[in-house]
Amino acid sequence: MTNDLVRAGILNKERLVLFSDAVVAIAITLLALELPVPEGATNAEVLRAFGEHWHEYLAFLISFAVIATHWNVHHRLFAHVTALGGRLGLWNLLWLFSIIVTPFATRVLTADEAFTVPFVFYALVQVLAGCCLLLMQREIRRHGLRPKGPDLAAAQDGYARSLAFVGCFVLSIPVAFLTRWAYICWALMPVVSIVVRLVRRRRASV
Amino acid sequence: MTNDLVRAGILNKERLVLFSDAVVAIAITLLALELPVPEGATNAEVLRAFGEHWHEYLAFLISFAVIATHWNVHHRLFAHVTALGGRLGLWNLLWLFSIIVTPFATRVLTADEAFTVPFVFYALVQVLAGCCLLLMQREIRRHGLRPKGPDLAAAQDGYARSLAFVGCFVLSIPVAFLTRWAYICWALMPVVSIVVRLVRRRRASV
Amino acid sequence: MTNDLVRAGILNKERLVLFSDAVVAIAITLLALELPVPEGATNAEVLRAFGEHWHEYLAFLISFAVIATHWNVHHRLFAHVTALGGRLGLWNLLWLFSIIVTPFATRVLTADEAFTVPFVFYALVQVLAGCCLLLMQREIRRHGLRPKGPDLAAAQDGYARSLAFVGCFVLSIPVAFLTRWAYICWALMPVVSIVVRLVRRRRASV
Amino acid sequence: MTNDLVRAGILNKERLVLFSDAVVAIAITLLALELPVPEGATNAEVLRAFGEHWHEYLAFLISFAVIATHWNVHHRLFAHVTALGGRLGLWNLLWLFSIIVTPFATRVLTADEAFTVPFVFYALVQVLAGCCLLLMQREIRRHGLRPKGPDLAAAQDGYARSLAFVGCFVLSIPVAFLTRWAYICWALMPVVSIVVRLVRRRRASV
Repeated sequence: MTNDLVRAGILNKERLVLFSDAVVAIAITLLALELPVPEGATNAEVLRAFGEHWHEYLAFLISFAVIATHWNVHHRLFAHVTALGGRLGLWNLLWLFSIIVTPFATRVLTADEAFTVPFVFYALVQVLAGCCLLLMQREIRRHGLRPKGPDLAAAQDGYARSLAFVGCFVLSIPVAFLTRWAYICWALMPVVSIVVRLVRRRRASV
Repeated sequence: MTNDLVRAGILNKERLVLFSDAVVAIAITLLALELPVPEGATNAEVLRAFGEHWHEYLAFLISFAVIATHWNVHHRLFAHVTALGGRLGLWNLLWLFSIIVTPFATRVLTADEAFTVPFVFYALVQVLAGCCLLLMQREIRRHGLRPKGPDLAAAQDGYARSLAFVGCFVLSIPVAFLTRWAYICWALMPVVSIVVRLVRRRRASV
Repeated sequence: MTNDLVRAGILNKERLVLFSDAVVAIAITLLALELPVPEGATNAEVLRAFGEHWHEYLAFLISFAVIATHWNVHHRLFAHVTALGGRLGLWNLLWLFSIIVTPFATRVLTADEAFTVPFVFYALVQVLAGCCLLLMQREIRRHGLRPKGPDLAAAQDGYARSLAFVGCFVLSIPVAFLTRWAYICWALMPVVSIVVRLVRRRRASV
Repeated sequence: MTNDLVRAGILNKERLVLFSDAVVAIAITLLALELPVPEGATNAEVLRAFGEHWHEYLAFLISFAVIATHWNVHHRLFAHVTALGGRLGLWNLLWLFSIIVTPFATRVLTADEAFTVPFVFYALVQVLAGCCLLLMQREIRRHGLRPKGPDLAAAQDGYARSLAFVGCFVLSIPVAFLTRWAYICWALMPVVSIVVRLVRRRRASV
């Protein structure tokens, strides 16, 4: 019977993962749906139109990278999970909520002149998503939903990655009240992610 | 041969579930597609624009919760189903129809000043969806598409959840002819759901 | 090695089916995306707006039924297919093409006053889709991609269903040059489908 | 343990493939979403509206064929891959990026009078996608992610196909600075693809 329950658990987990993947796939594809199409009778005009909308194209690239990072961490997170349990489903739903809101937040980010409110809104959506990933990792650890083994390092890498992700977005919020260069906090994320992982590994090996 | 048929049944069931999941994933992600983007040259203007559209954002949150609840019940419903049969496919199709119509009903809900007609339309779509879930549960029980076992309690929980869901939406319809506070019937759903489940469990244990 | 190839074949078939399902799920969900939202300051105005757009809502219902029928036949078609082969992939691609075009054809159908050209365009898209289903069934039979057995009757039912489908849409084209009542040819489809299946079964039992 | 890792690898590969399929399915279905609907009070007007938008319809057909070709090559590529490794995930992500951008590039292609800039933009997106497919094939070969066997020929066919694909789009870029007939480079792709495969097979058999 235990075996049956485990099998049932795996099936449920797979359905949850496939459903989540479908939502993420739609959200990431919809990002490109409302990109402004550069128009112009001549090539110079088209190039100028491209240039005028650089803000929208940059926001698209940022959101593509952000959602891809989310999916990557989620992928590593669930790779060895063998059953659902605890509040895993709840945090996953809240995570999906923030993924679904991300294309909207992207449009808010580039809608008009105002900077701080759209920027903070976008950052808060990402902080929510990142916290959900951290909470899911805690549930998995706490309820023993993943067999211990050689993948522990991979799991810890995922944790470090999420921490760096959340940290950069949290930090960018107060900075956004001072300057538009708050975007740099977002750009630093890959660097911070690598540093955090190196520190964790060194500490683990000590 | 029986084994073959069962295996074929499982495959079919999986394809039905995956197809349903894809439809639900698209419907829930499309909810955010037409959210009004708050515009403004200053932060104060953006905040005011956010405030002016609170009705749309609230409707988005409601529909997100509604579709997530549907998916959750559907997930539990099919977790241990081993074959398709009876009119399961038909009710599932009708259920998908109401899911597909939900983003449209959400836009109807917030389109303009009028209250009763949009509200009743939205409620009727959800009553349709909820009834389909109840009918699917009846088909599964009647045709023995789920092996009896430890999951019976989970299945009954799903049934109670659907009953509470349908009950709240049905109740809200007459109330909507009297007052805009009919939304409270919808907000009460989680409470009603818990009460109904407690009552059922007590009765089961007596 | 044969076993390996078969396994590879099953995997490929599954990926083709899942990809097709995703396309169909998106197409059927997008149908509702551009439904006109009835607006009005009073309930009477909203009801009138609903009434004014009855053509669009009817076209939505037709296309929902059409795509659901396609998916149903496709589902039965591939239920027992064990490998891909012949031109199955090509016809499936062409079938997906007509599914993808169906939401567009639906909008064409209700765009304006003109009747014959939009109606014939829509019918041609469905004839194309139906013929692809028939061609897929021929490839499956010809290349022995489905083990013979108790499902032969189900397969023949699918074939009869597709024939009725194509027949009704083909017939509606000349009728559309005479009268707007050509829609009746489409409405007769469920009846024709049942008659064709009864005739085939009687012939099979003789 | 090795077996466990392989199993884990297969699961991950499947999730990557399913996620990619979902993205491709959405992108190919969205192509039809923004097709201009021909309007007109009379049949003649509708036909004329169809004719006026031939450029958009042609671009839709081209992009449908392009994305279908991508999916086809991707399908063959991953059919016998047993594990993820190297930079396979990275190139796959970049490939998905170019797929997601393709519907946008299609709209750019037909937005206005200008020819060279939109044409080169579209071609560059496809060159990016094609190069990602080539790089994925190199990673698979280099890291031995596919067992050697009878499928080598199929894999090499995929490689030749991608080479022809990239070659035609690269060639079309300088031609586009001279003449609008650069589209012919794209139309020649199926021919070039067959020639390249024949040459490779002859060389292999020598």
